[in-house]
Amino acid sequence: MAAERIEHRACFGGWQDVYRHASDVLGCEMTVGVYLPPQAEHGPCPVLYWLSGLTCTEQNFITKAGAQRYAAEHGVIIVAPDTSPRGEAVADAEGYDLGKGAGFYVNATREPWSRHYRMYDYIVDELPAWVEANLPANGARAISGHSMGGHGALTVALKNPGRYRSVSAFSPIMAPSQVPWGQKAFTAYLGEDAVAWQQYDATALVADAAERLPLLVDQGGADEFLQTQLRPQLLQAACAAVGHPLTLRLQPGYDHSYYFIASFIGEHIAHHAHALKG
Amino acid sequence: MAAERIEHRACFGGWQDVYRHASDVLGCEMTVGVYLPPQAEHGPCPVLYWLSGLTCTEQNFITKAGAQRYAAEHGVIIVAPDTSPRGEAVADAEGYDLGKGAGFYVNATREPWSRHYRMYDYIVDELPAWVEANLPANGARAISGHSMGGHGALTVALKNPGRYRSVSAFSPIMAPSQVPWGQKAFTAYLGEDAVAWQQYDATALVADAAERLPLLVDQGGADEFLQTQLRPQLLQAACAAVGHPLTLRLQPGYDHSYYFIASFIGEHIAHHAHALKG
Repeated sequence: MAAERIEHRACFGGWQDVYRHASDVLGCEMTVGVYLPPQAEHGPCPVLYWLSGLTCTEQNFITKAGAQRYAAEHGVIIVAPDTSPRGEAVADAEGYDLGKGAGFYVNATREPWSRHYRMYDYIVDELPAWVEANLPANGARAISGHSMGGHGALTVALKNPGRYRSVSAFSPIMAPSQVPWGQKAFTAYLGEDAVAWQQYDATALVADAAERLPLLVDQGGADEFLQTQLRPQLLQAACAAVGHPLTLRLQPGYDHSYYFIASFIGEHIAHHAHALKG
Repeated sequence: MAAERIEHRACFGGWQDVYRHASDVLGCEMTVGVYLPPQAEHGPCPVLYWLSGLTCTEQNFITKAGAQRYAAEHGVIIVAPDTSPRGEAVADAEGYDLGKGAGFYVNATREPWSRHYRMYDYIVDELPAWVEANLPANGARAISGHSMGGHGALTVALKNPGRYRSVSAFSPIMAPSQVPWGQKAFTAYLGEDAVAWQQYDATALVADAAERLPLLVDQGGADEFLQTQLRPQLLQAACAAVGHPLTLRLQPGYDHSYYFIASFIGEHIAHHAHALKG
Protein backbone atom coordinates (compact mmCIF):
# COMPACT_ATOMS: atom_id res chain seq x y z
CA MET A 1 0.00 0.00 0.00
CA ALA A 2 2.13 2.86 -1.30
CA ALA A 3 1.47 6.21 0.31
CA GLU A 4 2.22 9.84 -0.40
CA ARG A 5 2.38 12.48 2.32
CA ILE A 6 0.21 15.37 1.11
CA GLU A 7 0.16 17.55 4.26
CA HIS A 8 2.90 18.06 6.82
CA ARG A 9 2.38 20.76 9.45
CA ALA A 10 4.08 21.38 12.77
CA CYS A 11 1.59 21.14 15.63
CA PHE A 12 2.22 21.06 19.40
CA GLY A 13 5.81 20.05 18.90
CA GLY A 14 4.87 17.15 16.61
CA TRP A 15 3.47 16.86 13.09
CA GLN A 16 -0.05 16.78 11.73
CA ASP A 17 0.31 14.89 8.47
CA VAL A 18 -2.14 13.67 5.86
CA TYR A 19 -1.34 10.69 3.63
CA ARG A 20 -2.96 9.58 0.39
CA HIS A 21 -2.65 5.91 -0.40
CA ALA A 22 -4.10 3.25 -2.69
CA SER A 23 -6.31 0.87 -0.72
CA ASP A 24 -6.53 -2.65 -2.08
CA VAL A 25 -9.44 -3.47 0.21
CA LEU A 26 -11.51 -0.47 -0.87
CA GLY A 27 -10.33 -0.38 -4.46
CA CYS A 28 -9.69 3.35 -4.44
CA GLU A 29 -7.38 6.04 -3.15
CA MET A 30 -7.91 7.07 0.47
CA THR A 31 -6.70 9.92 2.64
CA VAL A 32 -5.82 9.54 6.30
CA GLY A 33 -4.74 12.04 8.96
CA VAL A 34 -1.77 11.08 11.12
CA TYR A 35 -0.67 13.07 14.15
CA LEU A 36 2.86 12.22 15.25
CA PRO A 37 3.58 13.48 18.76
CA PRO A 38 7.05 14.80 19.62
CA GLN A 39 7.82 11.52 21.42
CA ALA A 40 7.65 9.70 18.06
CA GLU A 41 11.01 11.20 17.12
CA HIS A 42 12.65 9.20 19.88
CA GLY A 43 10.91 5.84 19.55
CA PRO A 44 7.71 4.00 18.68
CA CYS A 45 4.45 5.15 20.25
CA PRO A 46 1.00 3.64 20.73
CA VAL A 47 -1.76 4.50 18.26
CA LEU A 48 -5.29 5.77 18.80
CA TYR A 49 -7.56 5.22 15.79
CA TRP A 50 -10.30 7.82 15.39
CA LEU A 51 -13.38 7.05 13.29
CA SER A 52 -15.35 10.09 12.17
CA GLY A 53 -19.07 10.53 11.66
CA LEU A 54 -21.44 11.03 8.74
CA THR A 55 -20.34 13.54 6.06
CA CYS A 56 -16.79 13.75 7.44
CA THR A 57 -13.45 13.28 5.72
CA GLU A 58 -10.14 12.93 7.54
CA GLN A 59 -10.10 16.73 7.89
CA ASN A 60 -12.90 17.27 10.40
CA PHE A 61 -11.22 15.65 13.36
CA ILE A 62 -7.72 16.93 12.69
CA THR A 63 -8.82 20.56 12.26
CA LYS A 64 -11.60 20.82 14.87
CA ALA A 65 -11.11 18.46 17.81
CA GLY A 66 -7.97 20.00 19.31
CA ALA A 67 -6.73 16.48 20.07
CA GLN A 68 -3.11 17.15 19.16
CA ARG A 69 -2.41 18.94 22.43
CA TYR A 70 -3.32 15.86 24.45
CA ALA A 71 -1.68 13.43 22.05
CA ALA A 72 1.53 15.44 22.44
CA GLU A 73 1.20 15.38 26.22
CA HIS A 74 0.74 11.62 26.35
CA GLY A 75 2.89 10.53 23.42
CA VAL A 76 0.09 8.97 21.40
CA ILE A 77 -0.11 8.80 17.59
CA ILE A 78 -3.61 9.55 16.25
CA VAL A 79 -4.69 7.96 12.96
CA ALA A 80 -7.89 9.50 11.55
CA PRO A 81 -9.04 7.97 8.25
CA ASP A 82 -11.72 9.13 5.83
CA THR A 83 -15.24 7.70 6.36
CA SER A 84 -15.88 5.87 3.08
CA PRO A 85 -14.32 4.88 -0.21
CA ARG A 86 -13.98 7.82 -2.62
CA GLY A 87 -13.64 8.55 -6.29
CA GLU A 88 -15.68 8.56 -9.45
CA ALA A 89 -15.80 4.76 -9.69
CA VAL A 90 -17.37 4.45 -6.24
CA ALA A 91 -21.15 4.08 -5.89
CA ASP A 92 -23.01 6.90 -4.17
CA ALA A 93 -26.56 7.84 -3.19
CA GLU A 94 -28.66 10.91 -2.61
CA GLY A 95 -28.54 12.14 0.96
CA TYR A 96 -25.76 12.47 3.49
CA ASP A 97 -26.44 9.19 5.28
CA LEU A 98 -25.67 6.61 2.58
CA GLY A 99 -22.78 6.18 0.19
CA LYS A 100 -19.79 8.51 0.20
CA GLY A 101 -19.11 9.94 3.64
CA ALA A 102 -21.32 7.24 5.16
CA GLY A 103 -19.42 3.95 5.00
CA PHE A 104 -20.70 2.88 8.45
CA TYR A 105 -17.58 0.74 9.02
CA VAL A 106 -19.16 -2.40 7.58
CA ASN A 107 -18.28 -4.76 4.72
CA ALA A 108 -21.15 -4.31 2.29
CA THR A 109 -22.56 -7.48 0.73
CA ARG A 110 -25.15 -5.96 -1.60
CA GLU A 111 -24.90 -4.29 -4.99
CA PRO A 112 -23.87 -1.64 -5.89
CA TRP A 113 -21.97 -1.26 -2.61
CA SER A 114 -20.09 -4.51 -2.15
CA ARG A 115 -17.27 -3.71 -4.55
CA HIS A 116 -15.83 -0.71 -2.62
CA TYR A 117 -17.65 -0.35 0.69
CA ARG A 118 -15.46 -2.53 2.91
CA MET A 119 -14.60 -0.05 5.61
CA TYR A 120 -14.62 -2.74 8.30
CA ASP A 121 -11.73 -4.64 6.73
CA TYR A 122 -9.95 -1.39 5.97
CA ILE A 123 -10.11 -0.21 9.58
CA VAL A 124 -9.43 -3.58 11.20
CA ASP A 125 -6.72 -4.95 8.90
CA GLU A 126 -5.38 -2.87 6.04
CA LEU A 127 -4.94 0.48 7.76
CA PRO A 128 -3.25 -0.87 10.93
CA ALA A 129 -0.95 -3.01 8.80
CA TRP A 130 0.14 0.09 6.90
CA VAL A 131 0.46 2.14 10.10
CA GLU A 132 2.61 -0.43 11.82
CA ALA A 133 4.84 -0.95 8.78
CA ASN A 134 5.34 2.71 8.00
CA LEU A 135 4.94 4.84 11.12
CA PRO A 136 6.82 4.76 14.44
CA ALA A 137 4.01 2.69 16.01
CA ASN A 138 4.71 0.20 18.79
CA GLY A 139 1.73 -2.10 18.11
CA ALA A 140 -0.46 -0.98 21.02
CA ARG A 141 -3.86 0.16 19.69
CA ALA A 142 -6.89 2.01 20.99
CA ILE A 143 -9.97 3.13 19.11
CA SER A 144 -12.53 5.90 19.42
CA GLY A 145 -14.94 7.83 17.24
CA HIS A 146 -17.98 10.06 16.93
CA SER A 147 -21.58 9.25 15.98
CA MET A 148 -21.33 6.81 13.03
CA GLY A 149 -17.65 6.55 13.98
CA GLY A 150 -18.55 5.91 17.62
CA HIS A 151 -20.64 3.00 16.38
CA GLY A 152 -17.64 1.92 14.32
CA ALA A 153 -15.26 2.10 17.28
CA LEU A 154 -17.53 0.11 19.58
CA THR A 155 -18.29 -2.61 17.06
CA VAL A 156 -14.71 -2.98 15.81
CA ALA A 157 -13.45 -3.30 19.40
CA LEU A 158 -16.20 -5.73 20.46
CA LYS A 159 -15.63 -7.96 17.43
CA ASN A 160 -11.88 -8.17 17.84
CA PRO A 161 -10.98 -9.25 21.37
CA GLY A 162 -7.41 -8.57 22.31
CA ARG A 163 -6.77 -6.23 19.40
CA TYR A 164 -7.45 -2.92 21.18
CA ARG A 165 -6.31 -1.96 24.66
CA SER A 166 -9.21 0.47 25.10
CA VAL A 167 -12.27 1.84 23.34
CA SER A 168 -14.36 4.98 23.72
CA ALA A 169 -17.01 6.84 21.79
CA PHE A 170 -18.67 10.23 21.55
CA SER A 171 -22.42 10.16 20.92
CA PRO A 172 -22.28 6.80 19.09
CA ILE A 173 -25.16 5.28 17.17
CA MET A 174 -25.50 2.73 19.95
CA ALA A 175 -28.07 0.39 18.39
CA PRO A 176 -28.00 0.99 14.64
CA SER A 177 -30.42 -1.86 13.91
CA GLN A 178 -33.10 0.01 15.84
CA VAL A 179 -32.75 3.57 14.48
CA PRO A 180 -33.32 5.23 11.08
CA TRP A 181 -29.67 6.00 10.21
CA GLY A 182 -28.61 2.42 10.85
CA GLN A 183 -31.65 0.80 9.27
CA LYS A 184 -31.22 2.76 6.05
CA ALA A 185 -27.50 2.03 5.76
CA PHE A 186 -27.69 -1.62 6.82
CA THR A 187 -30.59 -2.33 4.44
CA ALA A 188 -28.55 -0.94 1.56
CA TYR A 189 -25.17 -2.41 2.49
CA LEU A 190 -26.25 -5.73 4.07
CA GLY A 191 -29.74 -6.46 2.75
CA GLU A 192 -33.15 -6.52 4.36
CA ASP A 193 -32.58 -9.47 6.68
CA ALA A 194 -31.88 -7.86 10.05
CA VAL A 195 -30.04 -10.96 11.26
CA ALA A 196 -27.06 -9.83 9.18
CA TRP A 197 -27.13 -6.47 10.90
CA GLN A 198 -26.42 -7.85 14.35
CA GLN A 199 -22.71 -8.37 13.64
CA TYR A 200 -22.38 -4.58 13.32
CA ASP A 201 -24.61 -3.50 16.19
CA ALA A 202 -22.87 -2.71 19.48
CA THR A 203 -26.02 -3.28 21.51
CA ALA A 204 -26.35 -6.76 19.99
CA LEU A 205 -22.61 -7.53 20.18
CA VAL A 206 -22.14 -6.94 23.91
CA ALA A 207 -24.27 -10.00 24.68
CA ASP A 208 -21.69 -12.31 23.13
CA ALA A 209 -18.49 -10.31 23.57
CA ALA A 210 -15.59 -12.69 24.25
CA GLU A 211 -13.74 -9.94 26.14
CA ARG A 212 -15.23 -7.55 28.69
CA LEU A 213 -13.35 -4.51 27.40
CA PRO A 214 -14.75 -1.51 29.30
CA LEU A 215 -16.68 0.95 27.13
CA LEU A 216 -16.31 4.69 27.78
CA VAL A 217 -19.10 6.69 26.16
CA ASP A 218 -19.75 10.44 26.38
CA GLN A 219 -23.14 11.65 25.23
CA GLY A 220 -24.36 15.24 25.08
CA GLY A 221 -27.60 15.85 26.93
CA ALA A 222 -28.74 18.44 24.37
CA ASP A 223 -27.78 16.31 21.37
CA GLU A 224 -30.40 16.78 18.67
CA PHE A 225 -30.11 13.09 17.71
CA LEU A 226 -30.20 11.67 21.23
CA GLN A 227 -33.52 9.84 21.21
CA THR A 228 -34.03 9.39 17.46
CA GLN A 229 -30.66 8.01 16.32
CA LEU A 230 -28.34 7.40 19.27
CA ARG A 231 -30.48 5.92 22.09
CA PRO A 232 -27.93 5.31 24.85
CA GLN A 233 -30.45 3.52 27.03
CA LEU A 234 -30.41 0.56 24.62
CA LEU A 235 -26.67 0.05 25.01
CA GLN A 236 -26.95 0.66 28.73
CA ALA A 237 -29.60 -2.06 29.12
CA ALA A 238 -27.63 -4.52 26.98
CA CYS A 239 -24.49 -3.98 29.05
CA ALA A 240 -26.40 -4.27 32.31
CA ALA A 241 -27.97 -7.55 31.19
CA VAL A 242 -24.60 -9.27 30.76
CA GLY A 243 -22.46 -7.26 33.14
CA HIS A 244 -20.39 -5.66 30.40
CA PRO A 245 -18.51 -2.69 31.93
CA LEU A 246 -19.86 0.60 30.57
CA THR A 247 -19.12 4.15 31.69
CA LEU A 248 -21.86 6.21 30.06
CA ARG A 249 -21.57 9.90 30.87
CA LEU A 250 -24.45 12.19 29.98
CA GLN A 251 -22.97 15.67 29.62
CA PRO A 252 -25.74 18.21 30.18
CA GLY A 253 -26.08 21.01 27.63
CA TYR A 254 -23.72 19.57 25.02
CA ASP A 255 -24.88 18.92 21.46
CA HIS A 256 -23.65 16.68 18.61
CA SER A 257 -20.93 19.04 17.33
CA TYR A 258 -17.16 19.16 17.49
CA TYR A 259 -17.46 21.67 20.35
CA PHE A 260 -18.62 18.70 22.41
CA ILE A 261 -15.78 16.47 21.21
CA ALA A 262 -13.21 19.21 21.83
CA SER A 263 -14.47 19.64 25.38
CA PHE A 264 -13.89 16.02 26.38
CA ILE A 265 -11.32 14.60 23.94
CA GLY A 266 -8.61 15.35 26.49
CA GLU A 267 -10.22 13.01 29.00
CA HIS A 268 -10.62 10.31 26.35
CA ILE A 269 -7.00 10.56 25.26
CA ALA A 270 -5.86 10.37 28.89
CA HIS A 271 -8.04 7.26 29.30
CA HIS A 272 -6.55 5.62 26.22
CA ALA A 273 -3.00 6.64 27.09
CA HIS A 274 -3.36 4.97 30.49
CA ALA A 275 -4.50 1.72 28.86
CA LEU A 276 -1.95 1.92 26.05
CA LYS A 277 0.96 2.28 28.45
CA GLY A 278 -0.35 -0.18 31.03
CA MET B 1 -27.26 47.59 17.26
CA ALA B 2 -29.85 44.82 17.60
CA ALA B 3 -28.45 41.30 17.59
CA GLU B 4 -29.74 37.80 17.13
CA ARG B 5 -27.98 34.75 18.55
CA ILE B 6 -27.71 32.25 15.67
CA GLU B 7 -25.46 29.59 17.27
CA HIS B 8 -25.33 28.47 20.90
CA ARG B 9 -23.22 25.43 21.75
CA ALA B 10 -21.86 24.17 25.04
CA CYS B 11 -18.06 24.14 25.01
CA PHE B 12 -15.61 23.56 27.88
CA GLY B 13 -18.26 24.38 30.46
CA GLY B 14 -19.18 27.67 28.76
CA TRP B 15 -20.89 28.61 25.51
CA GLN B 16 -19.62 29.15 21.99
CA ASP B 17 -22.16 31.53 20.50
CA VAL B 18 -22.46 33.34 17.18
CA TYR B 19 -24.44 36.57 16.83
CA ARG B 20 -25.76 38.29 13.74
CA HIS B 21 -26.27 42.01 14.07
CA ALA B 22 -26.86 45.09 11.93
CA SER B 23 -23.76 47.29 11.89
CA ASP B 24 -24.38 51.02 11.40
CA VAL B 25 -20.69 51.64 10.79
CA LEU B 26 -20.40 49.03 8.05
CA GLY B 27 -23.89 49.42 6.65
CA CYS B 28 -24.57 45.69 6.58
CA GLU B 29 -25.29 42.67 8.72
CA MET B 30 -22.32 41.11 10.45
CA THR B 31 -21.64 37.88 12.28
CA VAL B 32 -19.44 37.60 15.34
CA GLY B 33 -18.31 34.65 17.43
CA VAL B 34 -18.54 35.02 21.20
CA TYR B 35 -17.10 32.50 23.65
CA LEU B 36 -18.51 32.91 27.16
CA PRO B 37 -16.41 31.03 29.73
CA PRO B 38 -18.12 29.34 32.69
CA GLN B 39 -17.03 32.23 34.93
CA ALA B 40 -19.32 34.58 32.96
CA GLU B 41 -22.32 32.99 34.66
CA HIS B 42 -21.14 34.41 37.96
CA GLY B 43 -20.03 37.90 36.99
CA PRO B 44 -18.47 40.09 34.31
CA CYS B 45 -15.24 38.95 32.66
CA PRO B 46 -12.51 40.62 30.59
CA VAL B 47 -12.65 40.36 26.80
CA LEU B 48 -10.05 39.26 24.27
CA TYR B 49 -10.81 40.45 20.72
CA TRP B 50 -9.51 38.15 17.99
CA LEU B 51 -9.04 39.47 14.44
CA SER B 52 -8.83 36.80 11.75
CA GLY B 53 -6.84 36.73 8.55
CA LEU B 54 -7.53 36.86 4.82
CA THR B 55 -10.47 34.75 3.56
CA CYS B 56 -11.76 34.05 7.08
CA THR B 57 -15.18 34.55 8.60
CA GLU B 58 -15.93 34.36 12.31
CA GLN B 59 -15.98 30.56 11.95
CA ASN B 60 -12.31 29.82 11.35
CA PHE B 61 -11.03 30.84 14.76
CA ILE B 62 -13.92 29.43 16.76
CA THR B 63 -13.79 26.01 15.08
CA LYS B 64 -10.03 25.55 14.60
CA ALA B 65 -7.95 27.36 17.21
CA GLY B 66 -8.96 25.38 20.28
CA ALA B 67 -8.94 28.63 22.27
CA GLN B 68 -12.04 27.85 24.34
CA ARG B 69 -10.16 25.52 26.65
CA TYR B 70 -7.80 28.29 27.73
CA ALA B 71 -10.51 30.96 27.84
CA ALA B 72 -12.44 28.67 30.19
CA GLU B 73 -9.36 28.15 32.36
CA HIS B 74 -8.70 31.87 32.68
CA GLY B 75 -12.23 33.26 32.63
CA VAL B 76 -11.80 35.32 29.47
CA ILE B 77 -14.53 36.11 26.94
CA ILE B 78 -13.35 35.84 23.32
CA VAL B 79 -15.00 38.00 20.66
CA ALA B 80 -14.12 36.94 17.10
CA PRO B 81 -15.74 39.07 14.37
CA ASP B 82 -15.90 38.51 10.63
CA THR B 83 -13.12 40.08 8.53
CA SER B 84 -15.03 42.45 6.25
CA PRO B 85 -18.46 43.84 5.52
CA ARG B 86 -20.73 41.32 3.78
CA GLY B 87 -23.79 41.17 1.57
CA GLU B 88 -24.86 41.81 -1.98
CA ALA B 89 -24.66 45.59 -1.61
CA VAL B 90 -21.02 45.46 -0.57
CA ALA B 91 -18.26 46.01 -3.14
CA ASP B 92 -15.97 43.11 -3.89
CA ALA B 93 -13.00 42.28 -6.11
CA GLU B 94 -11.42 39.32 -7.82
CA GLY B 95 -8.90 37.52 -5.67
CA TYR B 96 -8.81 36.59 -2.00
CA ASP B 97 -6.78 39.58 -0.85
CA LEU B 98 -9.12 42.51 -1.58
CA GLY B 99 -12.79 43.10 -0.83
CA LYS B 100 -14.87 40.59 1.05
CA GLY B 101 -12.82 38.60 3.52
CA ALA B 102 -10.04 41.17 3.24
CA GLY B 103 -11.14 44.30 5.10
CA PHE B 104 -7.63 44.89 6.50
CA TYR B 105 -9.06 46.66 9.57
CA VAL B 106 -8.88 50.12 7.95
CA ASN B 107 -11.43 52.84 7.17
CA ALA B 108 -11.45 52.98 3.38
CA THR B 109 -11.48 56.46 1.82
CA ARG B 110 -11.67 55.52 -1.86
CA GLU B 111 -14.52 54.39 -4.08
CA PRO B 112 -16.06 51.85 -4.28
CA TRP B 113 -14.84 50.83 -0.82
CA SER B 114 -15.48 53.81 1.41
CA ARG B 115 -19.18 53.22 1.89
CA HIS B 116 -18.89 49.86 3.72
CA TYR B 117 -15.23 49.09 4.38
CA ARG B 118 -14.82 50.74 7.78
CA MET B 119 -13.51 47.78 9.76
CA TYR B 120 -11.27 50.00 11.88
CA ASP B 121 -14.19 51.91 13.38
CA TYR B 122 -16.17 48.72 13.73
CA ILE B 123 -13.42 46.99 15.71
CA VAL B 124 -12.39 49.99 17.80
CA ASP B 125 -15.79 51.50 18.59
CA GLU B 126 -18.98 49.82 17.47
CA LEU B 127 -18.21 46.23 18.36
CA PRO B 128 -16.81 46.91 21.87
CA ALA B 129 -19.77 49.20 22.61
CA TRP B 130 -22.15 46.37 21.73
CA VAL B 131 -20.10 43.82 23.67
CA GLU B 132 -19.98 45.93 26.80
CA ALA B 133 -23.69 46.76 26.65
CA ASN B 134 -24.90 43.23 25.94
CA LEU B 135 -22.42 40.66 27.28
CA PRO B 136 -21.14 40.08 30.83
CA ALA B 137 -17.97 42.09 30.03
CA ASN B 138 -16.13 44.02 32.72
CA GLY B 139 -14.55 46.63 30.42
CA ALA B 140 -11.00 45.21 30.41
CA ARG B 141 -9.88 44.56 26.81
CA ALA B 142 -7.08 42.73 25.06
CA ILE B 143 -6.57 42.16 21.34
CA SER B 144 -4.88 39.57 19.16
CA GLY B 145 -5.10 38.19 15.64
CA HIS B 146 -3.53 36.27 12.80
CA SER B 147 -1.84 37.47 9.61
CA MET B 148 -4.06 40.32 8.28
CA GLY B 149 -5.69 40.18 11.72
CA GLY B 150 -2.32 40.28 13.46
CA HIS B 151 -1.67 43.51 11.55
CA GLY B 152 -5.10 44.67 12.69
CA ALA B 153 -4.44 43.85 16.34
CA LEU B 154 -1.07 45.60 16.40
CA THR B 155 -2.27 48.74 14.65
CA VAL B 156 -5.51 49.03 16.63
CA ALA B 157 -3.60 48.70 19.91
CA LEU B 158 -0.83 51.10 18.89
CA LYS B 159 -3.32 53.75 17.74
CA ASN B 160 -5.44 53.63 20.90
CA PRO B 161 -3.26 54.06 23.98
CA GLY B 162 -4.96 52.99 27.18
CA ARG B 163 -7.72 51.09 25.45
CA TYR B 164 -6.17 47.59 25.52
CA ARG B 165 -4.37 46.01 28.44
CA SER B 166 -2.36 43.77 26.14
CA VAL B 167 -1.79 42.92 22.49
CA SER B 168 -0.37 39.94 20.65
CA ALA B 169 -0.24 38.59 17.13
CA PHE B 170 0.41 35.41 15.19
CA SER B 171 2.37 35.84 11.96
CA PRO B 172 1.14 39.42 11.43
CA ILE B 173 1.69 41.44 8.27
CA MET B 174 4.20 43.53 10.19
CA ALA B 175 4.88 46.27 7.63
CA PRO B 176 1.94 46.28 5.21
CA SER B 177 3.19 49.36 3.36
CA GLN B 178 6.23 47.41 2.26
CA VAL B 179 4.72 44.10 1.10
CA PRO B 180 2.39 43.06 -1.76
CA TRP B 181 -0.70 42.17 0.32
CA GLY B 182 -0.64 45.53 2.11
CA GLN B 183 0.27 47.59 -0.93
CA LYS B 184 -2.59 46.14 -2.98
CA ALA B 185 -5.17 46.64 -0.23
CA PHE B 186 -3.97 50.06 0.89
CA THR B 187 -3.83 51.36 -2.69
CA ALA B 188 -7.44 50.31 -3.21
CA TYR B 189 -8.82 51.36 0.17
CA LEU B 190 -6.68 54.45 0.90
CA GLY B 191 -5.35 55.64 -2.46
CA GLU B 192 -1.92 55.71 -4.03
CA ASP B 193 -0.31 58.18 -1.63
CA ALA B 194 1.65 56.00 0.76
CA VAL B 195 1.60 58.72 3.41
CA ALA B 196 -1.99 57.74 4.18
CA TRP B 197 -0.88 54.15 4.68
CA GLN B 198 1.36 54.92 7.61
CA GLN B 199 -1.54 55.26 10.05
CA TYR B 200 -2.29 51.56 9.50
CA ASP B 201 1.25 50.21 9.46
CA ALA B 202 2.54 48.78 12.74
CA THR B 203 6.17 49.24 11.75
CA ALA B 204 5.49 52.94 11.09
CA LEU B 205 3.27 53.40 14.14
CA VAL B 206 5.73 52.19 16.78
CA ALA B 207 7.93 55.21 16.15
CA ASP B 208 5.26 57.56 17.48
CA ALA B 209 3.36 55.28 19.87
CA ALA B 210 2.17 57.30 22.88
CA GLU B 211 2.18 54.18 25.02
CA ARG B 212 4.88 51.51 25.15
CA LEU B 213 2.46 48.61 25.26
CA PRO B 214 4.58 45.44 24.93
CA LEU B 215 4.02 43.50 21.71
CA LEU B 216 3.99 39.69 21.81
CA VAL B 217 4.44 38.19 18.34
CA ASP B 218 4.73 34.51 17.39
CA GLN B 219 5.99 33.74 13.91
CA GLY B 220 6.39 30.32 12.31
CA GLY B 221 9.85 29.66 10.95
CA ALA B 222 8.47 27.60 8.04
CA ASP B 223 5.72 30.10 7.21
CA GLU B 224 5.37 30.25 3.43
CA PHE B 225 4.72 34.02 3.61
CA LEU B 226 7.55 34.86 6.02
CA GLN B 227 9.82 36.90 3.78
CA THR B 228 7.36 37.99 1.09
CA GLN B 229 4.40 39.28 3.12
CA LEU B 230 5.19 39.25 6.86
CA ARG B 231 8.81 40.40 7.27
CA PRO B 232 9.28 40.38 11.04
CA GLN B 233 12.71 41.97 10.82
CA LEU B 234 11.09 45.28 9.78
CA LEU B 235 8.98 45.44 12.95
CA GLN B 236 11.93 44.27 15.00
CA ALA B 237 14.15 47.07 13.68
CA ALA B 238 11.45 49.71 14.20
CA CYS B 239 10.92 48.61 17.81
CA ALA B 240 14.65 48.50 18.49
CA ALA B 241 15.08 52.02 17.11
CA VAL B 242 12.70 53.56 19.65
CA GLY B 243 12.93 51.04 22.47
CA HIS B 244 9.41 49.73 22.02
CA PRO B 245 9.11 46.45 23.93
CA LEU B 246 8.71 43.52 21.54
CA THR B 247 8.82 39.81 22.24
CA LEU B 248 9.21 38.23 18.81
CA ARG B 249 9.37 34.46 18.95
CA LEU B 250 10.39 32.56 15.85
CA GLN B 251 8.91 29.07 16.20
CA PRO B 252 10.94 26.68 14.04
CA GLY B 253 9.02 24.38 11.71
CA TYR B 254 5.61 26.03 12.08
CA ASP B 255 3.72 27.32 9.05
CA HIS B 256 0.93 29.89 8.52
CA SER B 257 -1.96 27.57 9.40
CA TYR B 258 -4.31 27.17 12.33
CA TYR B 259 -2.15 24.26 13.51
CA PHE B 260 0.39 26.94 14.41
CA ILE B 261 -2.20 29.11 16.16
CA ALA B 262 -3.61 26.13 18.07
CA SER B 263 -0.13 25.23 19.29
CA PHE B 264 0.51 28.60 20.93
CA ILE B 265 -2.90 30.20 21.56
CA GLY B 266 -2.78 28.87 25.12
CA GLU B 267 0.33 30.89 25.86
CA HIS B 268 -1.20 34.00 24.31
CA ILE B 269 -4.39 33.67 26.32
CA ALA B 270 -2.37 33.19 29.52
CA HIS B 271 -0.42 36.34 28.62
CA HIS B 272 -3.61 38.34 28.06
CA ALA B 273 -5.31 36.93 31.14
CA HIS B 274 -2.40 38.07 33.28
CA ALA B 275 -2.65 41.61 31.89
CA LEU B 276 -6.45 41.68 32.01
CA LYS B 277 -6.56 40.73 35.67
CA GLY B 278 -3.54 42.81 36.73
